[in-house]
Amino acid sequence: RYFHFCKLPGRVMGIRLLRFTSMVIIVLLLVAGALTALLPNIKDDKMPNLRREPKTQSQSALDSFTLIMQTYNRTDLLLKLLNHYQAIPHLHKIIVVWNNIGEKTPEEMWNSLGPHPVPVVFKVQTVNRMRNRLQNFPELETKAVLMMDDDTLVSAHDLAFAFSVWQQFPGHIVGFVPRKHIFTPSGVYSYGSFELQSPGFGNGDHYSMVLIGAAFFHSGYLEDFQRQPESVYALIDETQNCDDIAMNFLVAKHTGKPSGVFVKPVDIRNLEKDTNSGYSGMWHRAEHLLQRSYCVNKLVNIYDGMPLKYSNIMISQFGFPNYANHKNKM
Amino acid sequence: RYFHFCKLPGRVMGIRLLRFTSMVIIVLLLVAGALTALLPNIKDDKMPNLRREPKTQSQSALDSFTLIMQTYNRTDLLLKLLNHYQAIPHLHKIIVVWNNIGEKTPEEMWNSLGPHPVPVVFKVQTVNRMRNRLQNFPELETKAVLMMDDDTLVSAHDLAFAFSVWQQFPGHIVGFVPRKHIFTPSGVYSYGSFELQSPGFGNGDHYSMVLIGAAFFHSGYLEDFQRQPESVYALIDETQNCDDIAMNFLVAKHTGKPSGVFVKPVDIRNLEKDTNSGYSGMWHRAEHLLQRSYCVNKLVNIYDGMPLKYSNIMISQFGFPNYANHKNKM
Repeated sequence: RYFHFCKLPGRVMGIRLLRFTSMVIIVLLLVAGALTALLPNIKDDKMPNLRREPKTQSQSALDSFTLIMQTYNRTDLLLKLLNHYQAIPHLHKIIVVWNNIGEKTPEEMWNSLGPHPVPVVFKVQTVNRMRNRLQNFPELETKAVLMMDDDTLVSAHDLAFAFSVWQQFPGHIVGFVPRKHIFTPSGVYSYGSFELQSPGFGNGDHYSMVLIGAAFFHSGYLEDFQRQPESVYALIDETQNCDDIAMNFLVAKHTGKPSGVFVKPVDIRNLEKDTNSGYSGMWHRAEHLLQRSYCVNKLVNIYDGMPLKYSNIMISQFGFPNYANHKNKM
Repeated sequence: RYFHFCKLPGRVMGIRLLRFTSMVIIVLLLVAGALTALLPNIKDDKMPNLRREPKTQSQSALDSFTLIMQTYNRTDLLLKLLNHYQAIPHLHKIIVVWNNIGEKTPEEMWNSLGPHPVPVVFKVQTVNRMRNRLQNFPELETKAVLMMDDDTLVSAHDLAFAFSVWQQFPGHIVGFVPRKHIFTPSGVYSYGSFELQSPGFGNGDHYSMVLIGAAFFHSGYLEDFQRQPESVYALIDETQNCDDIAMNFLVAKHTGKPSGVFVKPVDIRNLEKDTNSGYSGMWHRAEHLLQRSYCVNKLVNIYDGMPLKYSNIMISQFGFPNYANHKNKM
């Protein structure tokens, strides 16, 4: 016999109908969900995904980087560079390390000339130290750091490409300025230059450091730097130099591989000459290179060994800027 | 009271002396072993280890590679190339895939002109198939394979450098000839050329394949290739083409990354014109490129998706051949 709806009391009928309707709705939702799951995935790799769509300000920690720029006595250059760097793709925030002790930052002027594409934080320092830029800033939210000297202008194309390279080599210092060390039979190291080719190197050259004044590296290394021996801080403070060499030692020791990956820049410029302050960089000091050799040897003592490793890999961007830069006559 | 040696019987005395002497020797050996362990390690990284000393014929499986060269109707080019490739550093063995069905190999002549730096094996084939070179040859002992077309001459410098790059990217096809695929809105793929820049690509170009006719790759991929669906073999046999595209699909699917790493060659030459046989390569056939587009689409069907990924990384050797190829005016 079949079920007669009509014969049931109204209240029971209502509840049963409610239950029945709820079940139907649930079943329909499940079916819809299943259908959605069965839809073909729009795979990213069907489209060239070289250029991601511009993201909003809530950039994911992995997809963007923080620019850290230390500045001393070259505020005119700083402001010129900020206008350029503030618009670089994938930039999350800028941290300006203000080494002009006792001097007001240009924050007010900066704000009056807003809005700006990204937030800029002026970190006022109490002592003018080279290693101020290697603090683990609480404002740092991204995995990647771009560190730039306050007189160096790198093109947006170079930075976008180098950032994509860093994302493939996140444990390395990925940057535009390679340097090397040389081991001499006497057991003493020298900070090498490329003007003189090493004897026995008929097969090209190599580098063992990438300077952090124009490079991307993982923000975790700033954390690690806070745990360096006091002697490392003392060395950097004594010379007002070598913080970049120290970072390369740290990274090489950590990875057991060459610390850096060199990306050949297409357009990198030093704006030193353009400053009104008359101040030219530390590297003009007569003792600059000798200091760096001194630092290499001191760090080898502190590290009880030489962790730096050589690489001869040079990375360029395929098909840029010359469309056929990869062509060869076969 | 103390122990008097002299008062003991001779035999007991002898055994105890023997034990005592043995103990002394053991202790001395342990001390010597401990001292040896405490000696400072001679670290490799104190010396530039870019160039390893020439190894003996018992090269470690990781430090050397096997050249696999398939040949058809160009024995004069083959022999010319063998004279060049037999002397490449880090070469372990050469496997010649002999597609000249029914024809004697030049093995006798080769042996009569010995000795040779490495062993050469002539693998006689029964059918002239493009995919013969993708067998998992039992003679293959190294982790790395260098695959070369029988009309392609790459300099020793390029090969030594590319091998060192492969050792850093062992899961990739590291080679000298990049290609790309293009996705069209109709859903049909095309095998791309670089003569026409993709619209919207003002920022350089990219590649999604590295051809195996001039490349290093892991020998494990030859094993994997034996497990491809029959439809892949049928496609390659039908077109006598596309084995390299199929390998790029295999590698990309396996790694989830771009299949290849492009190393920009300094000196790569096609010797086609130099052959006396009058035979020019398959790529001169009118339908060659159209076939490759056809293969891309067929493989997407077989793989039920497009596994190829794009890369724009171009690797060159730092400081070679131009000593200052990394310099820029700052």
